[in-house]
Amino acid sequence: MSHEPAHHHGGDEAAGPTTIVVDNIGLLVTNDPALGEGPLGLARDAALVIEDGRVHAIERCGVAADDAFDAAGRCVIPGFVDSHTHLVFAGDRADEFVARLTGQPYDPAGIATTVAATRATTDDELLRLARRRQREAWAGGTTHLEVKSGYGLDVTHEHRSLQVASRLTDDTTFLGAHLVPPEYRDRADDYVDLVCGAMLDRCAPLARWIDVFCERGAFDRDQARAILDAGRRAGLGGRVHANQLGPGPGVQVAVEAGAASADHCTYLSAADLDALAGSDTVATFLPAADFSTRQPYPDGRAAVDAGVAIALASNCNPGSSNTTSMAFVIALAVREMGLTIDEALLASTLGGARALRRADRGHLGIGARADAVVLDAPSFTHLAYRPGMPLVAATLIDGQPVTPDDIGRLR
Amino acid sequence: MSHEPAHHHGGDEAAGPTTIVVDNIGLLVTNDPALGEGPLGLARDAALVIEDGRVHAIERCGVAADDAFDAAGRCVIPGFVDSHTHLVFAGDRADEFVARLTGQPYDPAGIATTVAATRATTDDELLRLARRRQREAWAGGTTHLEVKSGYGLDVTHEHRSLQVASRLTDDTTFLGAHLVPPEYRDRADDYVDLVCGAMLDRCAPLARWIDVFCERGAFDRDQARAILDAGRRAGLGGRVHANQLGPGPGVQVAVEAGAASADHCTYLSAADLDALAGSDTVATFLPAADFSTRQPYPDGRAAVDAGVAIALASNCNPGSSNTTSMAFVIALAVREMGLTIDEALLASTLGGARALRRADRGHLGIGARADAVVLDAPSFTHLAYRPGMPLVAATLIDGQPVTPDDIGRLR
Repeated sequence: MSHEPAHHHGGDEAAGPTTIVVDNIGLLVTNDPALGEGPLGLARDAALVIEDGRVHAIERCGVAADDAFDAAGRCVIPGFVDSHTHLVFAGDRADEFVARLTGQPYDPAGIATTVAATRATTDDELLRLARRRQREAWAGGTTHLEVKSGYGLDVTHEHRSLQVASRLTDDTTFLGAHLVPPEYRDRADDYVDLVCGAMLDRCAPLARWIDVFCERGAFDRDQARAILDAGRRAGLGGRVHANQLGPGPGVQVAVEAGAASADHCTYLSAADLDALAGSDTVATFLPAADFSTRQPYPDGRAAVDAGVAIALASNCNPGSSNTTSMAFVIALAVREMGLTIDEALLASTLGGARALRRADRGHLGIGARADAVVLDAPSFTHLAYRPGMPLVAATLIDGQPVTPDDIGRLR
Repeated sequence: MSHEPAHHHGGDEAAGPTTIVVDNIGLLVTNDPALGEGPLGLARDAALVIEDGRVHAIERCGVAADDAFDAAGRCVIPGFVDSHTHLVFAGDRADEFVARLTGQPYDPAGIATTVAATRATTDDELLRLARRRQREAWAGGTTHLEVKSGYGLDVTHEHRSLQVASRLTDDTTFLGAHLVPPEYRDRADDYVDLVCGAMLDRCAPLARWIDVFCERGAFDRDQARAILDAGRRAGLGGRVHANQLGPGPGVQVAVEAGAASADHCTYLSAADLDALAGSDTVATFLPAADFSTRQPYPDGRAAVDAGVAIALASNCNPGSSNTTSMAFVIALAVREMGLTIDEALLASTLGGARALRRADRGHLGIGARADAVVLDAPSFTHLAYRPGMPLVAATLIDGQPVTPDDIGRLR
């Protein structure tokens, strides 16, 4: 039933020359101010006309077409762009979650548990698990996602994780610097040399990005700089896990290195906000991780007011955020981070695309990829107004439904 | 595809004489300590044997049966018993939700908006909307729910709301005392007389319970007492909306009146905890309402530690909690209310049944109704560990699937 969308490096296979229309859209969010009202480019009683998997036009509803879906007056939004996930892993860490309920703090050292489970899993099983998570994400309205390695932590297994990741997306991230693995305890600099040397050599051809967890207990400022520099020389763009568990140098390192995104940003100083606002680095918030680790929530309001470009992402991983639900992320962002629903929707679509430097995603402007979600609701407000409810009626990637669809064909 | 379960007053229609088995259950929660480990009565590698819609036996997996479902090693729990909903309404109040994001406090006066919309809706449409919400609740694992009136607020429309409610459940609640309607402004006592007189006369035959919103801006202590007394004389058990928006007399009124439940309990004093602990009144927490109204969360830990019997419910309604997701409620309860996952699961199953005085629901003990949920997870922990994810693979009521089921028949 599921259409397998084209997601290869540089892949741009068309869905076919036929025109596809999503008609009878009560409220269409384009995220293109040129196409409608306000920053979300809202159009009412609209039809989304798709050709070759791209947005061809936004018209008044009632368009004649070879192939038309009936949105039945519901709301259509751009698909979520989830710019921070760790979908390639085996095992779960529910026991750590339970321990946190009784006051145990989140400890990054738990990553080693998933490393052991992931190394012990076959290639096929690792791919099957990752694909299942991607299907869950599609069912929740995510049409594009970034996938990191980081549960291999040796040359062979980091490379294998990126092989799996590249089956799911062209936004693959090499995260050899997720944690110093147990076998390098007290030899962190040796491990950094490995990451920047043999591991990077093997992994760079499969990755678009390099990422480093810059935090007490993981990698420090100088190590993070070295890793981002080595990545850049290998042609990889930078990303940083920054300021998750306390104030730290991560955001500054990200900005100095010209990273596309600093992720987590739970603790942002005034200097961090200034640095981000004067840069092209997106602040990517991961409130589902703050939910599950019982951390405070980041001040999204302060970031927006300071002029920082923001994104929201799921951080799906077994240790700190075992969810792909962007609706849940949005509900938390408006309840806990001071964002408006408009800001939260923009951050989880256009913001995610910006954090991945993808100009043709995260919006439904003319020429953009026709990645869209039909909500079982009259407005995107319901993503937060109806928390916990599965409100995705259908997800379209390149104009084709990828979920068991709940939208009727018009003919 | 959906089986319509028998939910009439005193209804007890059997599903048939055939034995049904849910087999290959990796982890079965019975909530009956006699049937397994701990307070949750956990059994592993089990089969749930059902006869005439009731639990007949818990056996080791691998049972031969005429009709068997394959849980495929997943976790099975008792269906959620959602003891506080307002499913009979028309319209939505997303605009109020948006206003709260910019600092507007929750105002019970907004109830009048829903009253106007509900009065203006046809009987058929009101039933259609309520049934759709019940189907959403089934898909989320709720197998039994209480439904209140309270958006009619005159004799005709309260009666009509209860007619609709009684099509959904036998736990119907007359909530004429939800708010003093605009036409009785400054004549609250006249409205209380109407509620206790002509309205109660008309509504009592359709209701099992009477409820009153005892809160500043709604009904005061004496009015609440008068309403609960009148209900008792008419044969209705008591329930109270208590201590939602601030400290108040609601909990004490509920306990004094012998109410089955005091609901909300966001603000509980030491005296309130004492009163509840020494009573048969259940404290029903509604954290999804606190989420959506941006109130503080109740201290569930303090209530449990004080020996108070607790329940968790959704409070599904358009003003303060537009969700039926009990998984979301459980995730909030463990993140924000200091409950363990075991306590939260018990509170949303057995606790809800206790709040409705239903001995044969909320557990899978021998003879109980075979209302059960197959989770797409190895453990109920995942309800909170995977927040926002739709984890219900199948919902069974009286032993029969009521959702498009994702569990295979064994033969």
